[in-house]
Amino acid sequence: MAIEIERKFLVEGDSWRSAVASKKRIRQAYLSNGGKAGVRIRIIDEERAKLTIKSKAKAGVKALSRSEFEYQVPLEDARAMLELRRGLIIDKVRHLVPAGGGRTWEIDVFAGEHEGLVLAEIELGSADEAVTLPEWIGREVTSDPRYSNAALAQGS
Amino acid sequence: MAIEIERKFLVEGDSWRSAVASKKRIRQAYLSNGGKAGVRIRIIDEERAKLTIKSKAKAGVKALSRSEFEYQVPLEDARAMLELRRGLIIDKVRHLVPAGGGRTWEIDVFAGEHEGLVLAEIELGSADEAVTLPEWIGREVTSDPRYSNAALAQGS
Repeated sequence: MAIEIERKFLVEGDSWRSAVASKKRIRQAYLSNGGKAGVRIRIIDEERAKLTIKSKAKAGVKALSRSEFEYQVPLEDARAMLELRRGLIIDKVRHLVPAGGGRTWEIDVFAGEHEGLVLAEIELGSADEAVTLPEWIGREVTSDPRYSNAALAQGS
Repeated sequence: MAIEIERKFLVEGDSWRSAVASKKRIRQAYLSNGGKAGVRIRIIDEERAKLTIKSKAKAGVKALSRSEFEYQVPLEDARAMLELRRGLIIDKVRHLVPAGGGRTWEIDVFAGEHEGLVLAEIELGSADEAVTLPEWIGREVTSDPRYSNAALAQGS
């Protein structure tokens, strides 16, 4: 079990692209999203797959911390599990950009239903860790439920 | 992925106990039970744990077939995941009794919320495979939604 602390921002412009260290395609969907846990299946570069259980973020001023359990699963299983999804398949390319201090920006460029949306996330050691925001970082949406993966998967 | 065909019966009396080959304690709960899939965490003899994704049985005359994906997970993860459950923790001792023809009866003796309930299940190669029913087998409840693990977990 790991505790995950992350902040999320809208991205403005394309200047971040020159700093990309690596990228991968992600297709994912939720098998469940009610109750206390979200259950997500994710296929990476159509080569490998992961099943993830995430506790729902607690309601409150800063909904930043939650528990996460993640397991590798066979690609064939994952493809079949996508058929058991609730809501949409999210299709995006995730770009990694070094953020300094050993941190990494994950910049997700969405395709399909969410074409045009670009989000940047950074995982931190604590909710109040200082972060230097590059010029391409736009409005913070960490606490905006419309930009959660779960909400995007519902097509809302 | 495996396709699971099973029939379920109420158990009458204790005469089956002399034929028990092995038994194990099972504690389990559902993380999710809506949509097209049930997500179950199961702890066996407090020694090992499994995470299982089952597609919901199709509505129809015989709701016997469904897909199942199962993964070993760390015991510590499983115990934490029980806290993310929806509904009750099911606590039961599962007894295995040889059924002939290479098949096995699984006889679940429930504790806690369902104290007094005893169910026998048998997994078959096809929905119309013949089964010899021992004298301790009572009413068939395969298609009775009240005896599904999901319904029992809801306390209904």
